[in-house]
Amino acid sequence: MDDATPAEVYLRYLQCLNDRRWTDLGEFVSADVVHNGRPFGLAGYRAMLEGDVAAIPDLQFSAELVVTDHEFVASRLIFTCTPGRTFLGLEPTGARITFSEHVFYRFHKSVIAEVWSLIDRSAIVDQMT
Amino acid sequence: MDDATPAEVYLRYLQCLNDRRWTDLGEFVSADVVHNGRPFGLAGYRAMLEGDVAAIPDLQFSAELVVTDHEFVASRLIFTCTPGRTFLGLEPTGARITFSEHVFYRFHKSVIAEVWSLIDRSAIVDQMT
Repeated sequence: MDDATPAEVYLRYLQCLNDRRWTDLGEFVSADVVHNGRPFGLAGYRAMLEGDVAAIPDLQFSAELVVTDHEFVASRLIFTCTPGRTFLGLEPTGARITFSEHVFYRFHKSVIAEVWSLIDRSAIVDQMT
Repeated sequence: MDDATPAEVYLRYLQCLNDRRWTDLGEFVSADVVHNGRPFGLAGYRAMLEGDVAAIPDLQFSAELVVTDHEFVASRLIFTCTPGRTFLGLEPTGARITFSEHVFYRFHKSVIAEVWSLIDRSAIVDQMT
């Protein structure tokens, strides 16, 4: 895996999430990963993702734009999904929603070491209230 | 300017914004630029920026992360500033705030042709209310 580019690892990481292969997450994410300044580690990062999927069972990670260099991946993700439980403090309405996330990932030794994520919460609020 | 890389043009574009050289904006931004799906054109794009700076006179555009390829620039901007007028519908408090913006820029013929921007509005709301 050490020869893989960040872009290659990233696309396999998204497939891992979409397949819900949580036990494989360590192939793509560092044991001491940091997310938005929070030192989650792999277990905390996995718990966050499992929580998202528990709230939104049909959540699929789909990259509309991926920009990458030797160390970073920047991705614009588009989600079209149906929250089934409370998500970001909002109650599900049963309706499908669509929103974007803009994420920067810093890679170290071919795995994701740090993540900076912004979600379009305003779009979610508009569609869930 | 046609030989410049997107990264080079982008850094000059940020300097142009920080210098408030609005009449130079067309060197960096396409006449028919699109922002978050809205066909602003250069005049509408300039009006948006001038509006932001009118609301926040000390606004400085500072890129913490820039990821780039031959066509795209992805940038994590960090703003530390003092809103002086209503901004995003929020009344100024006189206090300095800090927030991030994650932006993707598609370049065409060495100028910015399309922009996808997400601002951390939650952070702004937390600091202005």
